[in-house]
Amino acid sequence: MTESIHGRHYEDLRRMVERRLRGLTQRGSPEDLNDACRYVLSAGGKRIRAVLVLLSCEAVGGNAKQALDASVALELMHNFTLVHDDIMDHARSRRGRPTVHIRWNVNNALLAGDVLLAMAYAALLRSRTAKLSPLVELFTGALLQVCEGQALDLEFETRADVSVRDYFRMIGKKTGRLFSAAGELGGLLGGGSPRQVTVLREFGHHLGRAFQLQDDLLDVTADPSRLGKSIGGDIVERKKTYLLLKAAERTRGRDRAVVQVLLRGNRRRADGGHGAMQQSVATDPREARMIRTVTDIYRRYGVLKDTERQVRANTRRAVRALDSLPRNESAAALRWLSERLVTRPS
Amino acid sequence: MTESIHGRHYEDLRRMVERRLRGLTQRGSPEDLNDACRYVLSAGGKRIRAVLVLLSCEAVGGNAKQALDASVALELMHNFTLVHDDIMDHARSRRGRPTVHIRWNVNNALLAGDVLLAMAYAALLRSRTAKLSPLVELFTGALLQVCEGQALDLEFETRADVSVRDYFRMIGKKTGRLFSAAGELGGLLGGGSPRQVTVLREFGHHLGRAFQLQDDLLDVTADPSRLGKSIGGDIVERKKTYLLLKAAERTRGRDRAVVQVLLRGNRRRADGGHGAMQQSVATDPREARMIRTVTDIYRRYGVLKDTERQVRANTRRAVRALDSLPRNESAAALRWLSERLVTRPS
Repeated sequence: MTESIHGRHYEDLRRMVERRLRGLTQRGSPEDLNDACRYVLSAGGKRIRAVLVLLSCEAVGGNAKQALDASVALELMHNFTLVHDDIMDHARSRRGRPTVHIRWNVNNALLAGDVLLAMAYAALLRSRTAKLSPLVELFTGALLQVCEGQALDLEFETRADVSVRDYFRMIGKKTGRLFSAAGELGGLLGGGSPRQVTVLREFGHHLGRAFQLQDDLLDVTADPSRLGKSIGGDIVERKKTYLLLKAAERTRGRDRAVVQVLLRGNRRRADGGHGAMQQSVATDPREARMIRTVTDIYRRYGVLKDTERQVRANTRRAVRALDSLPRNESAAALRWLSERLVTRPS
Repeated sequence: MTESIHGRHYEDLRRMVERRLRGLTQRGSPEDLNDACRYVLSAGGKRIRAVLVLLSCEAVGGNAKQALDASVALELMHNFTLVHDDIMDHARSRRGRPTVHIRWNVNNALLAGDVLLAMAYAALLRSRTAKLSPLVELFTGALLQVCEGQALDLEFETRADVSVRDYFRMIGKKTGRLFSAAGELGGLLGGGSPRQVTVLREFGHHLGRAFQLQDDLLDVTADPSRLGKSIGGDIVERKKTYLLLKAAERTRGRDRAVVQVLLRGNRRRADGGHGAMQQSVATDPREARMIRTVTDIYRRYGVLKDTERQVRANTRRAVRALDSLPRNESAAALRWLSERLVTRPS
């Protein structure tokens, strides 16, 4: 019952965001560019970062409408990072559709990413508030952090000595900063006190960590039909996930050797070859075997259990941060959302 | 004598910009990203857009220092476009040094471009002014136009029916908007009247056109040792320059056929192959012959003369726009700068 109240509330806010995003896209010349932006923004999804802005605004007593422009801005910034990251990762699909650089080409994707970022600033500037300047500053600071996080992620590809600590630093910037910025933006626009804004920022930070850890976990434990992509992609790509780095700490003997192969660097060369085909996951029997072997290691050394614990611990920290906020329906929805994350099937 | 006064003034302002830019770059982790940003910003150059901001500020009675942050922001935005455009154009060198994606790789260049843009906003936000909001709006509008201009330029690569009118629309966005934004930003920060800000915007618009036309012209007429790159690069790359589009209007018979080959589309495929080597210009004897043939057509049909006329006409319009500004030394420096553009050797 509570679930469906919060679920409906979430859905209402998500639709507000969706409508506003639809209104931003253009048709006509330059066609490829406008088509690509429309394509990206029409992909749907949970719009979790945008809804977090709106719920954070309400949680401190504001009206979601006050934060709608900023929430759309954050969603646009997120989409900018997706389009550019997909180029860098040579990703061939997202949400079951070809990525922009596959559907069009790298040049159009690069430019569409740039435009999505410009659109993000344009949306943010439409916010009706006397505090526009701290808002734009916060937004720009978050953008810089996200870029740094992505740079660290790229750096990790060619480094064998990445630690769990390095990992948390990276995801704190790459994933966490958008979540913590969501809390801050909403808090500011809802007229929250400085203390409340800080609390919402911390909430977002912990939630972002939980979200990324859960993402790493789902790559090996999810139901493939619900994940929307093949299982074990991170293993095949030798990504330095929390799971792999934790396994690096724990494994011994032959298991250690397997983990070392994965740690020794991303299979892709850093310089890309952007025309190269990314191999589809798990069609290659050797890859399927590798996924089974590594997943088994994760299980035997308690890495899966540990990751689950980490997800729960970070979720708990997020929820606890909310304790000092007024006890209203939106704060309850933020709690509900955080706890749902831990159990999300995909 | 006048020349050296304005020259010294320009140089003083350029150094202010240079110093501030140097102060922005960081060392340390993420290393590739920070190194790439420092590499881009240490390339020097005329910093013409930044100095235009400062001179425009002074021309309406302001102090250059008031506009320094905005001038650096515009220079950063310009450098963001260079890094991303170089990826899209597969350019191998800029200012006699390897481009970022050649020196490092496409991924690092993409990300460095993103960060330069974030740094641009961060710089802009440091402007001490009560009018920050219109400033950021202007900046964001300019960014969108520049991206659109680049999208049109890419579109032109695969279109055979580009007109001179299309060309002016494209360069008005891609080149002109940064110049006109320079005038506006300086005018606003110098406390100029709305009329003066408009005048400076128009000044920049015409100057930007003159600048781009001169750029197109220099590709075939410059002294290669001063141009810093080989002559005829635009011809080899079949770029839709003003010269080529004007030749398309005028040529007949066999000359027409030669021009048609160039118009039929850029030699590169739009989808890139970003690992592919861009052929170095004029080492191939067929290319050298093509450059000679096309340059000869440009000469015989009066295209070179016509382009020179266009450069002069746009410069004149720019200078005339300045007539309604107060007659101070900085307005004189803007005039001097505009006229020097027409005669610049590279």
